[in-house]
Amino acid sequence: MSTKIKLGILGGGGDSLIGVLHRIASAMFDNYKIVGGVFNQYKEESIKFAQEIDIPTDRIYTDIDELIREELALPAEERMQVISVLTPNFLHYPMAKKLLEAGFNVICEKPLTTTYEEALTLKSIQQEKKTVFAVTHTYTGYPMVREIRSLVASGVLGKIQKVDVQYYQGWINPIIHDKEKRKSTWRLDPEKSGISCCMGDIGTHAFNMVEFTTGLKIKSVLADLNYLYEDNLMDIDGTVLLRFAENVKGVIRTSQIATGEENSLIVKIYGDKGGLKWEQENPNYVYHISEEGAMKVLKPGHAYNSEVSLGSTKLPPGHPEGIFDAMGNIYNGVAKAIRNENFDSAEFPTLLDGVRGMDFIEKTVKSHQEGNVWVTIDE
Amino acid sequence: MSTKIKLGILGGGGDSLIGVLHRIASAMFDNYKIVGGVFNQYKEESIKFAQEIDIPTDRIYTDIDELIREELALPAEERMQVISVLTPNFLHYPMAKKLLEAGFNVICEKPLTTTYEEALTLKSIQQEKKTVFAVTHTYTGYPMVREIRSLVASGVLGKIQKVDVQYYQGWINPIIHDKEKRKSTWRLDPEKSGISCCMGDIGTHAFNMVEFTTGLKIKSVLADLNYLYEDNLMDIDGTVLLRFAENVKGVIRTSQIATGEENSLIVKIYGDKGGLKWEQENPNYVYHISEEGAMKVLKPGHAYNSEVSLGSTKLPPGHPEGIFDAMGNIYNGVAKAIRNENFDSAEFPTLLDGVRGMDFIEKTVKSHQEGNVWVTIDE
Amino acid sequence: MSTKIKLGILGGGGDSLIGVLHRIASAMFDNYKIVGGVFNQYKEESIKFAQEIDIPTDRIYTDIDELIREELALPAEERMQVISVLTPNFLHYPMAKKLLEAGFNVICEKPLTTTYEEALTLKSIQQEKKTVFAVTHTYTGYPMVREIRSLVASGVLGKIQKVDVQYYQGWINPIIHDKEKRKSTWRLDPEKSGISCCMGDIGTHAFNMVEFTTGLKIKSVLADLNYLYEDNLMDIDGTVLLRFAENVKGVIRTSQIATGEENSLIVKIYGDKGGLKWEQENPNYVYHISEEGAMKVLKPGHAYNSEVSLGSTKLPPGHPEGIFDAMGNIYNGVAKAIRNENFDSAEFPTLLDGVRGMDFIEKTVKSHQEGNVWVTIDE
Amino acid sequence: MSTKIKLGILGGGGDSLIGVLHRIASAMFDNYKIVGGVFNQYKEESIKFAQEIDIPTDRIYTDIDELIREELALPAEERMQVISVLTPNFLHYPMAKKLLEAGFNVICEKPLTTTYEEALTLKSIQQEKKTVFAVTHTYTGYPMVREIRSLVASGVLGKIQKVDVQYYQGWINPIIHDKEKRKSTWRLDPEKSGISCCMGDIGTHAFNMVEFTTGLKIKSVLADLNYLYEDNLMDIDGTVLLRFAENVKGVIRTSQIATGEENSLIVKIYGDKGGLKWEQENPNYVYHISEEGAMKVLKPGHAYNSEVSLGSTKLPPGHPEGIFDAMGNIYNGVAKAIRNENFDSAEFPTLLDGVRGMDFIEKTVKSHQEGNVWVTIDE
Repeated sequence: MSTKIKLGILGGGGDSLIGVLHRIASAMFDNYKIVGGVFNQYKEESIKFAQEIDIPTDRIYTDIDELIREELALPAEERMQVISVLTPNFLHYPMAKKLLEAGFNVICEKPLTTTYEEALTLKSIQQEKKTVFAVTHTYTGYPMVREIRSLVASGVLGKIQKVDVQYYQGWINPIIHDKEKRKSTWRLDPEKSGISCCMGDIGTHAFNMVEFTTGLKIKSVLADLNYLYEDNLMDIDGTVLLRFAENVKGVIRTSQIATGEENSLIVKIYGDKGGLKWEQENPNYVYHISEEGAMKVLKPGHAYNSEVSLGSTKLPPGHPEGIFDAMGNIYNGVAKAIRNENFDSAEFPTLLDGVRGMDFIEKTVKSHQEGNVWVTIDE
Repeated sequence: MSTKIKLGILGGGGDSLIGVLHRIASAMFDNYKIVGGVFNQYKEESIKFAQEIDIPTDRIYTDIDELIREELALPAEERMQVISVLTPNFLHYPMAKKLLEAGFNVICEKPLTTTYEEALTLKSIQQEKKTVFAVTHTYTGYPMVREIRSLVASGVLGKIQKVDVQYYQGWINPIIHDKEKRKSTWRLDPEKSGISCCMGDIGTHAFNMVEFTTGLKIKSVLADLNYLYEDNLMDIDGTVLLRFAENVKGVIRTSQIATGEENSLIVKIYGDKGGLKWEQENPNYVYHISEEGAMKVLKPGHAYNSEVSLGSTKLPPGHPEGIFDAMGNIYNGVAKAIRNENFDSAEFPTLLDGVRGMDFIEKTVKSHQEGNVWVTIDE
Repeated sequence: MSTKIKLGILGGGGDSLIGVLHRIASAMFDNYKIVGGVFNQYKEESIKFAQEIDIPTDRIYTDIDELIREELALPAEERMQVISVLTPNFLHYPMAKKLLEAGFNVICEKPLTTTYEEALTLKSIQQEKKTVFAVTHTYTGYPMVREIRSLVASGVLGKIQKVDVQYYQGWINPIIHDKEKRKSTWRLDPEKSGISCCMGDIGTHAFNMVEFTTGLKIKSVLADLNYLYEDNLMDIDGTVLLRFAENVKGVIRTSQIATGEENSLIVKIYGDKGGLKWEQENPNYVYHISEEGAMKVLKPGHAYNSEVSLGSTKLPPGHPEGIFDAMGNIYNGVAKAIRNENFDSAEFPTLLDGVRGMDFIEKTVKSHQEGNVWVTIDE
Repeated sequence: MSTKIKLGILGGGGDSLIGVLHRIASAMFDNYKIVGGVFNQYKEESIKFAQEIDIPTDRIYTDIDELIREELALPAEERMQVISVLTPNFLHYPMAKKLLEAGFNVICEKPLTTTYEEALTLKSIQQEKKTVFAVTHTYTGYPMVREIRSLVASGVLGKIQKVDVQYYQGWINPIIHDKEKRKSTWRLDPEKSGISCCMGDIGTHAFNMVEFTTGLKIKSVLADLNYLYEDNLMDIDGTVLLRFAENVKGVIRTSQIATGEENSLIVKIYGDKGGLKWEQENPNYVYHISEEGAMKVLKPGHAYNSEVSLGSTKLPPGHPEGIFDAMGNIYNGVAKAIRNENFDSAEFPTLLDGVRGMDFIEKTVKSHQEGNVWVTIDE
């Protein structure tokens, strides 16, 4: 009998890119089997899509409520063991909430919710239910991002004293300068996208990357956002000053009007012994500098890598893996958690990471609106 | 009913890396379903592995003969539509031969065979049977390698006048200097690995890359191989001078004793209008230089890319894909061929590429053995 | 008779690196001749040094007062035409002031003065005297920095909407964590170095680079500096939020505790048509990205370069020039100004740039001290 | 009294780039003083040029014969101590011969001569006269090229087993395809340029770089040159297989039709412990790879650099120096030799290097003409 984990999926049907990403990721380590879900708001479409991707149609449901009801009615050993939530952002919260309350393990796309309050609600439910809950900050799945986390934890940088994360994209540039386009883009509509565009979409990734790699918690933020036009209601660019404990300072720089940039997420961390640098668009390189000795360029798959980094690489050195592989590593980590196997805390971001991310979004917007003042991030 | 292509697999069981690569690749575009095969020489192990990866065990066979017999006994619409051959190198030929003769489509790992003569035999069978036959020169699956082929074909380089391909690795270095190790490594044993190590293993990739990207045929070669030790029977390094038609010249440089190199396959092509450069370890960048104007750095997923390159990219620009994705693109191309859909000749290397590769190996060894003389590659 | 410009030098004797840099720079275009000066506070040492570098000793003076008196006593055509001020920082102001008042052209090392008020004084004198006055922001002498300025001015980026300049070094790290060392380092002593270390030393370079390349004026700043230790009186790290006119925003990031960084000055400018990026440690590359088309990598010496960039390159493409050449370009520009030849405003930074730089230092410190508030930069 | 070395120059007048390069180089360490020479074949022009660059005109001579006669007539302590030969290639030999015979130290631009025989003649004269004789293979002046030499000598690579040097340019491409142009270009005219274009111009640099960095001697060569057109008499591209002692092999790849390349000289050396890589267009980086541990990127000016590398760098790390600085380092080395100070053999290439280079040119052409056979390089 199959030992694969039974996976249900909400959303991600049709030609959804996020759907492709999650399906491939779930297949990468032979430990998931997609058994059903709700791919589309119309059941007929869901069934058609299930047939296309060759999933049995008997567990394709009308909606999440039916899914929960029917799955709970199944014997425990046949039941979906984890549900991936790939629906539009505003549905993340209500779906995650129902799934948590029903006791399911959840893999939720980011952003976790549309408000910090919702996120706190999920947190309190999960603290009671104790299910596995992953938030897919995909970039944490790269072996060399995990390597940075291991290196920092092992002390190669000494005491951290400076953190600088950039996340620059240019995709809103062709939209923002056209009055009609900027009114009709869902990402720029607060009704559909919450209170923030740039901070919500990529600022949270940067925030998560800071805390994931350094192991430090951001204590307070001072943000200057840019809306560029008076009639634009959403931030499309912003710089956030960061303060950590013990005089450690940093900066998060984000933009969606850095014209020509694709997906330029860059991490720079400096301690009293050296620095580490990484760029998402060349994810298989970590640059380690120090006062003494030459810069080292670390790559995946080597004996010198940490265990968690090595476990995130499938082929020998020199065979570049990419973002699908990163997501695959996250799914693999969740599988270990579901199976109660040992896993490293680096192997998937949790609900708590998602909660902190929602706090970050609200606090940066608040900082900006109140005149670029310092605002405290909750512990 | 499922529209997925029914895929059988020979070899690739246990913790075989090549098995992982092909399974993930086949899953990437939702167009294959693994229905059975022979994963291991012991049926019991095969069945156990099938269970592990959650494949039905009813079409796990004892050996290739049983597989062919039983599959042919099935109604055509249920039969395996393509078989992937992932067994040790010396089994490629006998298995591919049987499969071809029985009329199956084949995806064969490289090297195609152990001798050029065997390759010619396969060629003549396939010319009769007209099945789809792909040889997995994986690097041709990268979107930017396909982009180079498109760019050259479209004339951006003008008339080609110089080709230079490097394939440097260092993995044999720790073996070759130890007499015991070099005697006990299968890759250095002519009984197990044919007449060549370096040319056979990576020289063929370089050769294929030259012809794939330029569209030119190599006419003759002059090789100087290096065995380093008298008692070493296999080349572990070699430089091959190339001649094409019309005074076009080039060079293939290969080494497995380039200590510290991982998998450094580099392509440089120059025409009378400009040059193109690409490096496998950073596969998402193509460097286009010319006499006039600044160097351009092309990346995948952009409107300026060729159709076949764009079709080889799943996510928007800035989301790096890797070698699993490259192999996925080859499987996707084979799927189109099997379904009689339109496809570009760039979408998978064929048996003919494999045949030429075998000729290249034998001719370079001959050139070297006869005193570094020019030897003609068959047309 | 020599047509070379007669150059006097104050400071830069012995094994002073800055002395070497200015001497080589002045020699690069065969348009300066060092005729004398005051290399050292002891005349004897000055004369000895003059002999070492084979300068006639008849115009080696005891001090600046003697230099001015004696030079003014010479016939105009024999007189020093320009004086380079390479003395310790706190002497820049009094020396520049005397030279200006006496009507000399001046090349002054940065920082121009120790206070903004002093800088304003120099400005008012120079406005009356109308002499040539250059401040050696060396990095503006690189051909590709000048190319960026030309490209932005020509509109390739469209309207600027985001500016990001980094200047990270690590050299204070080994000093700052040792109580004794941080007390005894002159750069960290306000008595000797003015009110700021990091902003004064490298922040001004970053500020100058922003305004030089974009042609925009920074309107206001909000700074968060880092002193790391309570007993440390000088900033050694700081991030400065920038506001320009018309909703253009930016950031200057500086650090001297970015351990392992050497001299990492990085410029990123984004407009509504594209972006330009440059790194000081690889000064011969400009990266031009845009929404449409591939990234272009511009290099010096090409027909596509602007006139001022081409005039800043001595050899054909592919022959890398460096920082001595950059300083040589600045001296060359000053020579044109002295000779009343046509020159481009890019060819040397002026006293006004130095004045704005001093304002920037004081305003960032003020912003920090008043609680990270916005402070206006004077027009 | 000046302690500077009295330098005479032959050639390099007017707007000669090579003249600029040598003048700046000689000024870089304050140890040369240009006292006269023959800048032009017309004395009037020479004098005019001397005035422009502010050199006394009393030692500007009509020709080399007058120079030798008059200088020898001066007291030894006033006499030119070294003469730089910057004239057209075909004049290098007769001038160097006369200077050697008269007992002068010489700095000679490359190529040393137009034939190997001439080079041998110079060698035998110099062995008798024992003067200092430098050949300006400028690239050996880079601090990181010297670092490679030191690293190899110190054993970090173990025993060398593979050497690969590329020198690709594209400048002949726009000439070679036009029949008129290729007939009228002096570099392609054997009457003016000797027997080889590509090997003579850049192949020798590659050859010198191989021997300079590895300390090994090339024993034999097999070359395949490319002339591209029947009526073209000079090689414009060529690949040379190399054999050293003890089964060490290598390759030199050169081209002047690598369209779009600027001055791409690349060195790769592999031993049984690791590899070193360097690129002339980014001369301040050396990449050190090995089986164990991460790649190291070495830069100039660090405590970890060899003494000779450190002595070739003027400013602290992060301040890029370039090709003028490289030539300056060679002049500095020659100065030490002239002054009988200690110097490292890396500090300037000698007449013997030039002699070997001439042998290399003739042997590669011979190898090609005789049908791509192995030809021995003299010891």
